[in-house]
Amino acid sequence: MSGMNRRWVLKRRPEGEIAPGDLQFVETPIPALGEDEVLVRNLYLSLDPTNRIWMSDRDQYMPPVEIGDVMRGGTIGVVETSRSERFKAGDIVNTGLGGWQTYTIAPAAIVSPVPMIPGVPLTAFMSVLGATGLTAWFGLMDIGKPQPGETVVVSAAAGAVGSIVGQIAKLKGCRVIGIAGGPEKCAWLTRDLGFDGAIDYKNEDVGDALDRLCPNGIDVNFENVGGKIMDAVFDRMNTFGRMALCGMISTYNDDGPPSGPNDFGRILMRRLLIKGFIIIDYLPRAGEAFAELAPWVASGQIKWKAHVVDGLENAVDALGRLFTGDHDGKLLIRVSPSTI
Amino acid sequence: MSGMNRRWVLKRRPEGEIAPGDLQFVETPIPALGEDEVLVRNLYLSLDPTNRIWMSDRDQYMPPVEIGDVMRGGTIGVVETSRSERFKAGDIVNTGLGGWQTYTIAPAAIVSPVPMIPGVPLTAFMSVLGATGLTAWFGLMDIGKPQPGETVVVSAAAGAVGSIVGQIAKLKGCRVIGIAGGPEKCAWLTRDLGFDGAIDYKNEDVGDALDRLCPNGIDVNFENVGGKIMDAVFDRMNTFGRMALCGMISTYNDDGPPSGPNDFGRILMRRLLIKGFIIIDYLPRAGEAFAELAPWVASGQIKWKAHVVDGLENAVDALGRLFTGDHDGKLLIRVSPSTI
Repeated sequence: MSGMNRRWVLKRRPEGEIAPGDLQFVETPIPALGEDEVLVRNLYLSLDPTNRIWMSDRDQYMPPVEIGDVMRGGTIGVVETSRSERFKAGDIVNTGLGGWQTYTIAPAAIVSPVPMIPGVPLTAFMSVLGATGLTAWFGLMDIGKPQPGETVVVSAAAGAVGSIVGQIAKLKGCRVIGIAGGPEKCAWLTRDLGFDGAIDYKNEDVGDALDRLCPNGIDVNFENVGGKIMDAVFDRMNTFGRMALCGMISTYNDDGPPSGPNDFGRILMRRLLIKGFIIIDYLPRAGEAFAELAPWVASGQIKWKAHVVDGLENAVDALGRLFTGDHDGKLLIRVSPSTI
Repeated sequence: MSGMNRRWVLKRRPEGEIAPGDLQFVETPIPALGEDEVLVRNLYLSLDPTNRIWMSDRDQYMPPVEIGDVMRGGTIGVVETSRSERFKAGDIVNTGLGGWQTYTIAPAAIVSPVPMIPGVPLTAFMSVLGATGLTAWFGLMDIGKPQPGETVVVSAAAGAVGSIVGQIAKLKGCRVIGIAGGPEKCAWLTRDLGFDGAIDYKNEDVGDALDRLCPNGIDVNFENVGGKIMDAVFDRMNTFGRMALCGMISTYNDDGPPSGPNDFGRILMRRLLIKGFIIIDYLPRAGEAFAELAPWVASGQIKWKAHVVDGLENAVDALGRLFTGDHDGKLLIRVSPSTI
């Protein structure tokens, strides 16, 4: 195989919102395959809030993307050429963090086959049955440990992770309140996903709405947003409450460090547990989540949506949608057409 | 039995430091005993930072002491009169929160015998083998979960709780750094208690000293102080670090809510666990801690000190010592002379 690889390269670290020129779309030749390597034509690229963190040089959980390197991102694709006995051309595979590029060359050891399920589209493995769903399941089940009858509050509840968190919590017998932006998202949560209540943070006072919808306080907070929304939830956490800190998207475009809740003493007085987590830490245990999620997805007990944007060249613009909320489901780039 | 009870009554809520007149020392008649009640002459009263919280009406883990009520506090004493078959005059008993008074009348159901150990003085049961030691053991073992070779940092390390935390962590094979006020306390930690290092926050930059003494970062923080000292430790927590939040004494005289660490995002990036706790939650499991602590105390493997102030009338003045650090060991009031 020879040819050209189209890719997004980080040229400089964004200050605040991503600006034109921070990333550059370039073409480079595809090098020859080494032994035990595979060449994968990427089909889908996952866009995630954490992408913005990787572009910065702030303290973070992985090394930042280096200036001049291809942008990091999760991918799924089809094997074009293989120098490994484990894979053959045409296999649909997960290459992990294959990057913002049309082709990924990867050692076969880090490539895994996608466990296709009849009737479940490939995009599910980039969302509810991929890192998104695992994030929801482990944060809720391993940290939140929801008990039947408890009240669970999810922020960014109409987002890819949040919407799954809420549905799992419902399946576990909890009262579930979601916080989302706009009446349409809120209606989707309560009407289609079975949430017990939804709060439109763009049009409601979150604290007042929490008081109304959580008369018995809050036992579990699955936190995706940070800032004032987190603070409003935090102030209403019950004794022995748990906060699974998954993200703080409201702060990712800020320069300074993100501040915490106003009254840290509440952690002591209410004996709260706060735990940050990153899904890569749980990957060795992925099977636990998959075993519960896959049947729910196949049977339709968990609903999910993908918002697919065509063309890798649109990745930077599309990423901005995560921060404005202007998307409807797990945000994916269709990198190249798939025949499946 | 008839006679008078001397007691401290809360007259108004202190603003900032406790001022004269906030509490009043009064005499009231001792009422007659009801059925299944015991009259206990208190021998020792425990003075603890949390006493200051109980005087305020801030959000807290128990109801605040009501204006006009006797001040709340932990006590141990000797039964004078009993209308219960479980106790007889002369028994040494724990009455729980018997209050700042010379006599406590309590239902026998909440009174427990003190499990005296030959060679171990009664004051041990008000410190290392009482709530103080249990606080140290549960916070460290149940939340901190220290592993051999890990680095544990304790604030207020020369305090009643902190000094025991550090010694347990050493017995568990950890590297232990204590933060305390003044060269004498620091020398006690490293010379007498076996701490690997001590930081004198009154004379050193805590951050610089932590950098020097914790070259591999910090895995466990047993936090008693809050504020800037907590922030310096927090900024150096390793990935998967644990903070057992036991107290924030540096903030208890403040009016506003105590703020948290500057960079809350570190909880996410480093996947930290923060858990607040109050020892009363662990009382049903007290036996677990006692089983490990009692032999260590009896054999001298854990050292401890009591700072005993004579006379209940001195309790308010003595409590102030907790906030200035002007005491040497667990602060106790000898309420009345003991013959044992």
